[in-house]
Parts: sequence; structure tokens; C-alpha cells
Amino acid sequence: MRVAVVGASGYTGLELLRLLVRHPELEIEALTSERQAGTLLGDVYPAFRGVLDQRFEAVDAKSIAERVEFAFAALPHAASAPVVRELIQAGVSVVDLSADFRLRSAETYAEWYGEHRAPELLGKSVYGIPELHRAAIRDAQLVAAPGCYPTSALLPLAPFLRRGLVEPRSILIDSKSGVSGAGRKAEEAYLFAEVGESCRAYNVGGGHRHVPEMEEQAELLAGSEARVAFVPHLLPATRGIVTSIFLQPREPLTSAEARAVLEAAYGDEPFVRVLPEGETPSIAAVRGSNFCDVTAVVDRRTGALLLLSALDNLVKGAGGQGVQCCNLMQGWDESLGLREVSFLP
Amino acid sequence: MRVAVVGASGYTGLELLRLLVRHPELEIEALTSERQAGTLLGDVYPAFRGVLDQRFEAVDAKSIAERVEFAFAALPHAASAPVVRELIQAGVSVVDLSADFRLRSAETYAEWYGEHRAPELLGKSVYGIPELHRAAIRDAQLVAAPGCYPTSALLPLAPFLRRGLVEPRSILIDSKSGVSGAGRKAEEAYLFAEVGESCRAYNVGGGHRHVPEMEEQAELLAGSEARVAFVPHLLPATRGIVTSIFLQPREPLTSAEARAVLEAAYGDEPFVRVLPEGETPSIAAVRGSNFCDVTAVVDRRTGALLLLSALDNLVKGAGGQGVQCCNLMQGWDESLGLREVSFLP
Amino acid sequence: MRVAVVGASGYTGLELLRLLVRHPELEIEALTSERQAGTLLGDVYPAFRGVLDQRFEAVDAKSIAERVEFAFAALPHAASAPVVRELIQAGVSVVDLSADFRLRSAETYAEWYGEHRAPELLGKSVYGIPELHRAAIRDAQLVAAPGCYPTSALLPLAPFLRRGLVEPRSILIDSKSGVSGAGRKAEEAYLFAEVGESCRAYNVGGGHRHVPEMEEQAELLAGSEARVAFVPHLLPATRGIVTSIFLQPREPLTSAEARAVLEAAYGDEPFVRVLPEGETPSIAAVRGSNFCDVTAVVDRRTGALLLLSALDNLVKGAGGQGVQCCNLMQGWDESLGLREVSFLP
Amino acid sequence: MRVAVVGASGYTGLELLRLLVRHPELEIEALTSERQAGTLLGDVYPAFRGVLDQRFEAVDAKSIAERVEFAFAALPHAASAPVVRELIQAGVSVVDLSADFRLRSAETYAEWYGEHRAPELLGKSVYGIPELHRAAIRDAQLVAAPGCYPTSALLPLAPFLRRGLVEPRSILIDSKSGVSGAGRKAEEAYLFAEVGESCRAYNVGGGHRHVPEMEEQAELLAGSEARVAFVPHLLPATRGIVTSIFLQPREPLTSAEARAVLEAAYGDEPFVRVLPEGETPSIAAVRGSNFCDVTAVVDRRTGALLLLSALDNLVKGAGGQGVQCCNLMQGWDESLGLREVSFLP
Repeated sequence: MRVAVVGASGYTGLELLRLLVRHPELEIEALTSERQAGTLLGDVYPAFRGVLDQRFEAVDAKSIAERVEFAFAALPHAASAPVVRELIQAGVSVVDLSADFRLRSAETYAEWYGEHRAPELLGKSVYGIPELHRAAIRDAQLVAAPGCYPTSALLPLAPFLRRGLVEPRSILIDSKSGVSGAGRKAEEAYLFAEVGESCRAYNVGGGHRHVPEMEEQAELLAGSEARVAFVPHLLPATRGIVTSIFLQPREPLTSAEARAVLEAAYGDEPFVRVLPEGETPSIAAVRGSNFCDVTAVVDRRTGALLLLSALDNLVKGAGGQGVQCCNLMQGWDESLGLREVSFLP
Repeated sequence: MRVAVVGASGYTGLELLRLLVRHPELEIEALTSERQAGTLLGDVYPAFRGVLDQRFEAVDAKSIAERVEFAFAALPHAASAPVVRELIQAGVSVVDLSADFRLRSAETYAEWYGEHRAPELLGKSVYGIPELHRAAIRDAQLVAAPGCYPTSALLPLAPFLRRGLVEPRSILIDSKSGVSGAGRKAEEAYLFAEVGESCRAYNVGGGHRHVPEMEEQAELLAGSEARVAFVPHLLPATRGIVTSIFLQPREPLTSAEARAVLEAAYGDEPFVRVLPEGETPSIAAVRGSNFCDVTAVVDRRTGALLLLSALDNLVKGAGGQGVQCCNLMQGWDESLGLREVSFLP
Repeated sequence: MRVAVVGASGYTGLELLRLLVRHPELEIEALTSERQAGTLLGDVYPAFRGVLDQRFEAVDAKSIAERVEFAFAALPHAASAPVVRELIQAGVSVVDLSADFRLRSAETYAEWYGEHRAPELLGKSVYGIPELHRAAIRDAQLVAAPGCYPTSALLPLAPFLRRGLVEPRSILIDSKSGVSGAGRKAEEAYLFAEVGESCRAYNVGGGHRHVPEMEEQAELLAGSEARVAFVPHLLPATRGIVTSIFLQPREPLTSAEARAVLEAAYGDEPFVRVLPEGETPSIAAVRGSNFCDVTAVVDRRTGALLLLSALDNLVKGAGGQGVQCCNLMQGWDESLGLREVSFLP
Repeated sequence: MRVAVVGASGYTGLELLRLLVRHPELEIEALTSERQAGTLLGDVYPAFRGVLDQRFEAVDAKSIAERVEFAFAALPHAASAPVVRELIQAGVSVVDLSADFRLRSAETYAEWYGEHRAPELLGKSVYGIPELHRAAIRDAQLVAAPGCYPTSALLPLAPFLRRGLVEPRSILIDSKSGVSGAGRKAEEAYLFAEVGESCRAYNVGGGHRHVPEMEEQAELLAGSEARVAFVPHLLPATRGIVTSIFLQPREPLTSAEARAVLEAAYGDEPFVRVLPEGETPSIAAVRGSNFCDVTAVVDRRTGALLLLSALDNLVKGAGGQGVQCCNLMQGWDESLGLREVSFLP
């Protein structure tokens, strides 16, 4: 199947290209970039020389709709909605990796991102975590690939919220992300000399845009109001997210019981691994792969339930999850093109 | 004043040497290392060539007691207690950087570290955070420099616990530490190829040895039972700790009120900086310096109180705090030899 | 085809496993490790959980020879020779990644590594750089995968030596390698806190074991005596090698002519990319991939010919090149399982 | 003595501030930055809060000349010349850290940087490597602090060139620099995600602006024409430079003789350390300090003379060397404020 990657010159688009190159059923027909239109991919990213010798083109939804039946969109939020609308109207199936179709509520979207430019699609779009919404993804024309942080939080949280085992109005999340999560932005804050050998929290107090996404999904899972305190950190690393979640169990439970909850939910999943007792998720074990590693521990001092996860923000947190959704939408084996081991060392 | 550094070949001892070299009132008379006895410091650590051309000697408390009136001990826990006892008995003043004299209770010590080898000193020893125990440190012969994680947690916590503003039985702490905190151990887990580009939690669920230290100090501050859930992480960085603390306020408070609590406590402190609104502590701003940067924010979604801190685990979290205590014990200006700006870049 | 990986627990073996997992024609029958025998691969390297759920076994050449017709050996030098001899005698084809079969001369081997334990195989073994010895590799039962540094040096050097364009008695090589090249050794020198934010040359003056390998191959290419001054460096990075080579041209030549020499030699090669004018090889463009990027520039001040290259020491410098040789030995498409783009970011 | 730092918001200026803060005889009267004028230093660089609570001001040479008798200029090249001219005319002594006064020849300057804006000062300015030009620096009103790469190359080279031991028309230099050498530039090439885990050569073939500076100084030392082939690399590190130099000895010499040449030249120098046999310079041993570590080895395969050095590009390669010059110009102890040990770990 021929596909287009709309917005292919940022890190998310780039990682998609890397994944698509080795997907056995997908062929890249078009890759767009306003800024790089006309340039060879390999002249911008030498890694692609001899592998994918194509040129960036300007975004032209009509032209794309004539050439492909499936597209991945990796445009900035707000820029994505109108392009996706055109593609959808022309009958193209789309996995959108921006924030534009993740929220169900146009009001919430407006509050965090500005007015929505294709609000009629919000009801049609499916939130693209296959482990939580597999059936709906199979039938969707438009899938919104979730944010990287929400994926890292919702996967371990979901079974506990669904089963009503924890208090959903006090979900305390502390995440640490590699700097590629900020995209390929030439800003002083992301220079090697500023990020290296440092670490800091940012957007604390409730101001991060992934909060409404996490709360909306948490409420769907819990069936009642959910509140998230979210503390993201910038790591001196390029890829990967590790997340800790502190929860108050409604009834006391043991670590073994908590891990059993995860195993019951994910034992058969191809891309979620519940770690054995005594192990903790690490970026090293997932970077470059589509895995999300999770575990649960009950703190013996306070009785708090601690959930931990690790994933690669560009794979399970973005492009890899997008490909997983595409596989489902096409009725293929869900793990096609995604059976990759993390690179260690 | 001539001083000895007992256990000078690990990272903690090494950093002490770096700090002592530029202290205007201290001169290094002896540095000990069982493993390196007889070797020139500069042959083990070329950085010291031309700066401190001394040899390591084997530990001999008697010889040291004859030559100095003040010693820093940076030995492993359990190994420290008998050496410190001998020094104390011989009238030497000691700042001990091991875990041996941090806890007041010999039973708690035994539970976490094995039987104490100098329990009679536990009552004499003062916990060495000057901002919390300044008067006692001034009069002490033996000061236990606190653990790096506890310093990063107790400094922001203390004013809230003392004033009864938060629930002390549910102190949720998520810390991220540079790998030098593990010492100079030749273990696979600390290799560049394993630590770089990764991050993971470890010793979760209540198993980290800094938990009893934090709880004991928190109880002293709160005047009632305190419980700490502690989740430490290994960062792909050499130095520095950033800590997030989630607390439940007893009465709702605003971010401004929370920051005012910190400012009231630390406004005049030379080494604790309360950050302006909108800024978050980062390792980059403190590495190599004796500062601990702190702030407080009330999360607008959950009402949780979030405390954040950053320090250099080898300076304010170890050697620098030790020197600060020494300055107090000698009646000198507390910041002597410690007015150093973080190195950025 | 079922294959064995003998010596699978080090970084070289590990990377081979990562590559074999996605090779469409190879299936891993056995993986050996004396130290880890009996343990699940995923318990040592969590990245493999859910991907390759096999146990390490002790090395038993007989058992392996009964089960597979092809083996990769990634044992330490000296340990490899006797195992490989047994496999070869039992009719197994072998790609050996140790140093044991790279040199043609048993005397030279003895000088650098100690007495050879299977000298009769030195004449049979083929030096495994496909771009230089493709025909011989196709017919070989035993291929010695070259050292990582020699691959990075010989690929750019070869066409100039073969055509007699440069002086072979003064080949000046300055290389910079990621720390994974040292293997998974728990030594202080390779700790994150020692390697990070540093860089140093080592084994200078002619003492590095890759020197005789480079000289032997350079003499074969030049048809006359060759001498190499080699200065390796340890980078604060995990993977990758960049190499600079300074040469004295026999006749003055231009940068364009020098690049044309490379293009004539490698224009049709699947894994050697001659970079466009103005670009220089970087680790970022090759890490995780089997590419070696090369270029040539004539220095306008001195007239020296400068060759530059970059490769991933664990892929084109070890396991990837091994797989490439295996593909040739089996008569398959040489790039089978190796069409991978570097991961950037 | 009160001093000004003109151009204090880049990395070079910042490091100067860090060094000046602990200098016992210098007090910072003014710090300028066009971009940050009016802002508190600590609001741009939080590390300075509580240490240096001053505001940036716009550059006004007159105002500065009225307030100080000594200034450090860390402006970009071309921008520096007119400001320095005004300061010099007003009687202020200046250490300039830009490239504007390093070359003696206005023609060479024009070729590499554009027309010189204060050419009459080229004859007055002294090249600021104290180990090579100490007497002239003592008497100078204007000192040009050398480039970081030239310092790392000229210190090991100088004694060999002065004594005519090597061929000056073929000086082959391979350098590796931390990314802070590029300054605080918000460019994609210097992002963490691009620099980390990579390494590449740049500006090869004779195009780097430090080449004419090295050649001019090499010619002064050799007393005859000198030609430099220079290959700089970008390291995945923030600070530090390691340099390898390949030379052709005029008469064969041994490693011991080569090291003796360095020892004769630098045995009494406070900031140049000739390493013992068997050791190689590393960034870890010099970062944050004003040391330049050097050694010499004769390659036993080719007879080439190899010189190696390491320094911190921001200290001995910029601000530290500037302070060392200032100390000399004031007739103070040359090492005042500079007795700092490298930070390891």
C-alpha cells in the first residue's frame, strides 16, 4: 500500500519514515515539508541516503488524495486539522500524530490550543492506543495517535481505573522525557550544552497540554471525574520516557496483586510487557522499539500504589503506535514492521 | 587548620579534596585510602597533579589524631564507625559523610545496615543540615553529613512540616540522581554504555536506605509520625539531583502562599535559593556549587502541593555541606571556601 | 537457516542477536555464554523479552555442530580459536568476530596475542570486508570479521593504495570510538562518570592490536610495505567510530579527483556511501545501520590527502558486517536483513 | 581592581564571570549585552543568583572607560574591534577574547573575516599565550586571547618548532572539541538530539579560521614557512579539547627525548603539565581548570612524532587564559584566582 507522510521533516515524521522503510506492506509515495519542499530527504538527513532517495514536496492534500489511500500526518497542532479534513473528505484514511484530534471536546481543545479548525471530525476520530481502543481503531477512518506522555501514563493506569481500584481524583504523575519530545526546535533551551548533564521539571502546576488529554481518557476509563497532577521533566537523553504514578488504592492491596492486575490486562499484548517482580522499566530496554514496559509496586511505608512505565517517545509514544494503528485499520497483523528489539548498548 | 580526609579515593572523598584545595583556612595534612596507600593522588586522579602532590596513606586513626584536630571521613558505612570512634576519643572533631551517624536509633540502623559499631556516639552526633540544625552543629564534635537524597527532600519539606501545613503520613518523593551518587563502583550497571541515553527507577517500594533517614528527620520536624514513599531514579548524568515531592495540604493554599513559606524559611540563607515564580530548579544551575534551589507550586487540577528542588549530590549533598558544617564548627563564616558558581555550560 | 551465536552475552554478541532477530532467512537455534548458561536472555537483557525467549547454554561445539550448519562466534580472542576449529572440522560454516583469524601470519599473531591455537586455519580464513574480498568470502567456510577500527580505515584507504596514489609507509590514522568498542567490561575506566564529558587517546605509539591487522591488509592492497601510525580515542558516546587519515599523495591531486577515486570504487556498493562535496561523515548518520560513510578532501594548505569515514562499530564494524558475509556465503542478497536506517534522533 | 566584561551573555563571557567571581583582586563593575541589556544576570543564568546580582547593560565604551581601568571583551569578531579601539584610546587595558587582534597581518584578517575595523592596533596587540609571550604580555595594553584550538596546538608544538626539530611545512592537526566552542547559538546542528551520541569532522580541507592563526604563530616559532592541515571535530561533550599532532622529525628521536623537550620547556610552568610516560591527556583531568596537559610519543611503526594535548576550551582556551594574562599585565601572581582542580566526576 502506498502511503504519504505529511509533515515529514520533524523528528516525529523522521521516525515514521524510519519505521515505514522497513514495513513489508507499506511504500512511501510522498513526503511533505513546507520548509524543505524540493530538497532530497538525504540532503537534510544523510542517514536516508541510499535508502530512501525521495524529495520533500509542499503539502497539497488534493495531490496526495489522488495518489494514496492512507496518510500519516505529523504536522504541528492547528496546522494539522485543515489538511486532515481535506484528506478525510477525499476518502483517505489518516493517522494523525498532532494534538488536533485527541480530545473529544472542542471546548477543551479551544482552551488549550485555540479554536478547532475541523471540529466536526472530533466525534469521528478514535484515540489511538490499540491496547485500550482496538475495536474502534479497526473501524476508524481517522485515528489520533496519542501524546507520548499520555501513552506512558494511561497504559499502566487503565486497568486500575477500569476496575475502580484507585481514587481517580488524585492521580499524581511524574514523568521524565528525552529531549526529542520537544521536536527539532532550534532553541537555546534544547542545546547540547544546556540539556547535557542537567535535568529539570517544566510546565508544572497543571499547565502542560497533555493534562486534559490524560484527564479525558482517565474519565472514560474510570467512568467518573478524574484529576491529574502532572510533573514532566527534561532528561539529558534524546529518546525515551519513564513515568512514575502515585495512586491511593481504594482498598489496600499487595504488590503481587497489583502486578496481577497488569498481567490480566496485558498478558497477551504484543507491545506491553509487565516486568517480573524486582525489575523496573528502563529506557535502555525500550528505545527504538514499540514496547511499553510496565510494573506496579505497593509502597510498604505509605501503602501508596506506584505504577512505573518506560517507552520510546518516538516509537510507542508516536510513530510506532501510529503504524500499529495503521496495521489494525488495514486488518493486518498488528505488529507488522514493528518487531524490533531495543538497541543496547 | 590542618585536616585529614579519611577515605579519600572515592567520588565523595575526591570532591572534598577539590573543595578543600580552595578553602582559605584549611590545609590537607593527610589523605587515606586502603587500596591506594602509598600512591600519589595525582597518579590515581591526574587532575590533582601540580595542585595537591600528596600520597594516600593507610588509615591509622592514631597517627591522624596526632597530626590534626579536624577530620572528614568519607568511608563506606560500617567501616566508618570504628575509625570515627577512635578519632572522637582522641579529641578530633569529625564530619562523617557515611551513613553511620545519621540515624538516632541504633535499632533502625541495625535494620538497614547491620549492627552499629559505635552506638554510644549516636546520641552525640548532630545531623548536618545547617539550615535545620545550625546551633547544634556549632557545638558539635561529631556531625553526620546527611545523605544526598534526604538533603534534597528535607530542605523544601522542612518549613511545611514544622508549620503543620501538610499531612506527614503521605510524603511522596520522586528523585532523579546523577550516577556519581553510586560511587566509583566498577559494576556493569554503571557503565557508560548502560547508563547513557537511559533512565530508570530503582529500589522502589520502600527499600532505599535513605527512607528511614528521611522519616526520622521528618518526624522531628512534624512532631508526629511521618511516612515517606520514595522513588529514586538513575539519570544519564554524572552529578546532580532533582526531586519532586507531592503533598496533601491540610488547608488549601495557593502557589504564592506556598512560595512565601519557603521564602520565610530561607530568605536569608546563603545556600538555599527560593526561585522566582515560573522557574523550576535545574541541575545546570547548581552543579559544582553548594546551592540547593527550591520552589513550591500548588497543582491547579488536584490541589496537591508540589515541592521541587535541585542540588549537586557531591557538593550540597555531600562534601560541600560537610565543609559548611566544618565552617560552623570552627566559628568561621559559614560560606568560606564555598562561594562557587555552577559551571554552565 | 538455523544458526548459533557462540559468545552471545557481550555487546558484540548482543548486537548480532538484534540483527539476526530481523533477518528473514535466519533463525537463532542456540546462544551460548559460559557465564550466563541456563539464564533466559531476557533476564540478562530485558530488551529481548517477548522477542527472543531463549536461554543461554554453555559452549559445546559438538552439540552446536549437530544442530546448525552456520555459526557466528563472538568470543574473546584466544578463546575463539579452539571452538571455531571444532566447528569447522564438523563442517559448520563460521563467521568469527574475534581477532583470531584476521591475521595471515601466525608469527604476527603470536607477537600481539600469544601463541595461536588453530594456526592451520589461518590460510583458510578469509578477511571479511565484502567490498574488498567479495569473491573469496562467497567461497569461504571461515570468515574473520575485521576489527571495527580497521574497517573504518581500510574502506577509504583501499582504492588509493590499490591504485598506488599514496605513500603506504606513512599512513597516519586518528580514530574516535564509542565506548561499546571496549566491550561490556566492568572497569572504572568505562564508568559513565569517567567517560562522560571526556575524551582521550589511548594505546598510542604503535601499541594497539589493530595496527598489525591494518598493516597486513594495507600491504596486500598496496603490494608493498605499509606502515601505520594509529591514534585511537575513547569518545563520550556508546556507538560509532569516526576516522581521519592523513596521507601523502604521490602526485598532487584535487579534492574532486580524490572523491572520484572513492566513487569509482564504491559507487555501486550497497553499504559504502561516498558523501557529496562539502559533507563530512558523522556517527549520527550511520549508528544502528550497516553503512560506512566516506569522503576525501585534499588539504589546501599542505597538499595532504585527508580521508574521513564513519561507521557503527557494532554493525558495519562487527555484527552487521558478519551478517553481510553470511549472506554472501549463502549466496543470498548481500543486504538481506541489513536495510536499516540510522536512528536520528 | 574593578573590571568590565563586555559581551557577557555568551558562553565565553559567562565562563569569565565564573572565574572573576572567585578572583581575589578583581571586582566586576559592569557586564554588557546588547540583547539582555536591563535584565538581571541571574534571570538569564540562574546559577548566578545570590552570587552576582548585577544587571546587563548596553555596551557604552565611554561609560565603561570612566568606571574601570581594565576590561575583558568577549564580543563576536568584527563587533569587537571598534569597541576595543575606543577602550584602548580611553586608556583602558583590554584582554580581547575575539579573533580581532590575534593576527598580525590585516591582509590575512581581511581574507578570513572581512576588513579590519581597527587595523592600527594589530601591531600593538600581543598574542596572549603566557607560556610563549610572557614578557610582551606584561607590558601590553591590549592582549588578544588566542583561539581555543590554537592554544591546544601551539603549546605542545612550540618547543619543537623553536628548536627546529620538526618539519614546519607539514603540521597535521586533528582536534576534537566540546560543543560549547560553537558558542550559545540556537542552531539545529547544536541541539542535544543532534550532537549527543555523535561525532563528526567539520570545516576540513583548510577552511577553519584558526588555521591562519596557527600558521602565523608557527612561523614565528619556527622562523620559516609553516603549513597546517587542520581537522576539527565536534564531540558529544560540552567542554574540552583534545588534540593530536602528527609531525615528521628532522632527525629520528625517541619518545623519551621528545618528552624531555616538553619538560625542558614547561617544567616550571604553573598551567602546563607534561604527563608521565604511558599517560595520555584527557578532558576529564582538565575541565573547569586552567591546565593544558601535554605529552609526546614517537610512533614505533612510522617514526612519526605524535604530540597530544588536552585543555578546557572555555578556561585555558578562553577565559582562564584571559585572566592569566590580566594577572601578568597587573604584575600579580600569574595563577591568582586560577588554582582550580578539574571536576571529576
